[in-house]
Amino acid sequence: MNGPNPTAGRSSAPPRETVPVPTGTRDVLPEEMAELREISARVAGVFTDAGYGEVSTPSLEFEETVRIAAPDYLDNVYRVPDADGRPLVLRFDSTVPIARLAATRYREADPPLRFFYLQHVYRPVEPKRAQSRQFLQIGMELLGEAAPQGDAEAIELLARVLEAAGLTDFRIAVGDVGFFTGRLEAAGLAEDDPARNSILHELQSRDLVGLRRELDRANAINDGDRGRLADVAAARGGRELLEREGASHLLALDDRLRGAGIEDRVIYDLGLVRQLSYYTGTVLEVYAPHSGFPLGGGGRYDDLVGCFGRDLTAFGFALNMERLHLAALAEQEGAR
Amino acid sequence: MNGPNPTAGRSSAPPRETVPVPTGTRDVLPEEMAELREISARVAGVFTDAGYGEVSTPSLEFEETVRIAAPDYLDNVYRVPDADGRPLVLRFDSTVPIARLAATRYREADPPLRFFYLQHVYRPVEPKRAQSRQFLQIGMELLGEAAPQGDAEAIELLARVLEAAGLTDFRIAVGDVGFFTGRLEAAGLAEDDPARNSILHELQSRDLVGLRRELDRANAINDGDRGRLADVAAARGGRELLEREGASHLLALDDRLRGAGIEDRVIYDLGLVRQLSYYTGTVLEVYAPHSGFPLGGGGRYDDLVGCFGRDLTAFGFALNMERLHLAALAEQEGAR
Repeated sequence: MNGPNPTAGRSSAPPRETVPVPTGTRDVLPEEMAELREISARVAGVFTDAGYGEVSTPSLEFEETVRIAAPDYLDNVYRVPDADGRPLVLRFDSTVPIARLAATRYREADPPLRFFYLQHVYRPVEPKRAQSRQFLQIGMELLGEAAPQGDAEAIELLARVLEAAGLTDFRIAVGDVGFFTGRLEAAGLAEDDPARNSILHELQSRDLVGLRRELDRANAINDGDRGRLADVAAARGGRELLEREGASHLLALDDRLRGAGIEDRVIYDLGLVRQLSYYTGTVLEVYAPHSGFPLGGGGRYDDLVGCFGRDLTAFGFALNMERLHLAALAEQEGAR
Repeated sequence: MNGPNPTAGRSSAPPRETVPVPTGTRDVLPEEMAELREISARVAGVFTDAGYGEVSTPSLEFEETVRIAAPDYLDNVYRVPDADGRPLVLRFDSTVPIARLAATRYREADPPLRFFYLQHVYRPVEPKRAQSRQFLQIGMELLGEAAPQGDAEAIELLARVLEAAGLTDFRIAVGDVGFFTGRLEAAGLAEDDPARNSILHELQSRDLVGLRRELDRANAINDGDRGRLADVAAARGGRELLEREGASHLLALDDRLRGAGIEDRVIYDLGLVRQLSYYTGTVLEVYAPHSGFPLGGGGRYDDLVGCFGRDLTAFGFALNMERLHLAALAEQEGAR
């Protein structure tokens, strides 16, 4: 984000140095900071009014905390050597630390527990890719409220948060991580068939061509099912899609979203699978026009808090503050 | 900050784990978070009203940025290995990054430049010491306003900030890093005499017994000067102290602080030397009753921004948000 350095080598003064910030990080200057503060205050107000309390967790956690809860993520964290010898990692998401916090600091508290946060997460970047090493997330975790009621509370809150941030034209894509895998099993693909992981990998990258290729390679699945599975993975729509495909979990959720009057904000996506392995049920992603990337996402993770010693169902979502801000700006520009 | 784990080994369920947070870090729970947000909003309001704009810098910077500006601090930073191979460090203060930001992003802007920030800094801890690995600082940097005018603006702002945070009973200790070293030179101690570093080291740790010992060991200084130097290092007081000792820089500052009507908030401390090597003039520390540690500190660093390619005089201070909050709470309790 630094500009060029036209003074380099021109001055007669002693040599001075300009150093860029690492790729994937940036300085935020006052005008943008003021706007980010304003949006986050509005969003925090929505959370607070809904009974959510803000928490903050350390930027440095023991590697062990990640290993217990999301070991597949250890390939994608910053490790920080410490003189103590017990390895530390930089926070890569807020869900795992808040699961730890809830299970330890709220071990005896009556559920449901409602938390929100505004903090940075850190992820190693690949060279030459426009990835962020560090980004600011605002999000929530609702613990001890099972599906479909907890899912509906979170999605309704998400819609209110996006409106408070200044967005009018957004869509919340909602899927169910169990739906497609259930269809794979119904089509005869065993849970330990190596083709399963290849298929799910293509689904996670939203590569429908790759998905079709991997379905074709799965010998356990017959031709007719291959076509039907590819169609399901690409299917998006409203309640009629859920009825046609018999997506009973999502139908129960849709009943509640209709009760809350936010069914127009939601589009069901039966191929939606989030990358983090801890999701167990409903998952979601947020889209806005003019944004090439989802503004955020989330889902249900009923087994995660239990890893830290207290069984609690859970649902959470996180929004990327920078993308949220840019999407709100783009809408304002469009409205002019 | 985690409680004990009374459930460990008692449950018949599969073994579950509770993991603490690393020493020197902590979870912040909703009640405290709400109070921290309230204090920081009030302080941010004071900064904004005074024309300061908030900035945010990356948590990860190139090690080179620290090496250019404050190489002595490289022993006290977290290094973060990166796949790129170019070493990263966690932010250990906000002054160096904002100096970098000002020199690069505001290379052509007319001074003075006024910035404030609310962000965490990270410092390795020694085993068995109650040190913080991570703490939240709110602070400011005023660039391009020389002494004494810039010093006075910053100290007046600091007093307003502390009042806005809810403190009534605080003192700002003000010293001058050049005053004591000037006295050492006047007493005959050469700048390259090895005794100089030992003396300054004791002064930095505020160890007056150790200081007297190191003064006695310095052969270049005569007995009378040793006593006078020890007295000066321990001297605290008002304008009369500055007049007696001929502390001309601080007298010029005191004129302005009197003009602003905040001379009662200030106590001059001729032995005050801050640990960071980049300070070049006036330095300060903030004390409140019931707080065993300074709430924060700062000073003038006229040579730092130039390291990044633009010569700008500068003054900054930072407050530890947690200590500020605890000091304000302690005053409230005392007032009940």
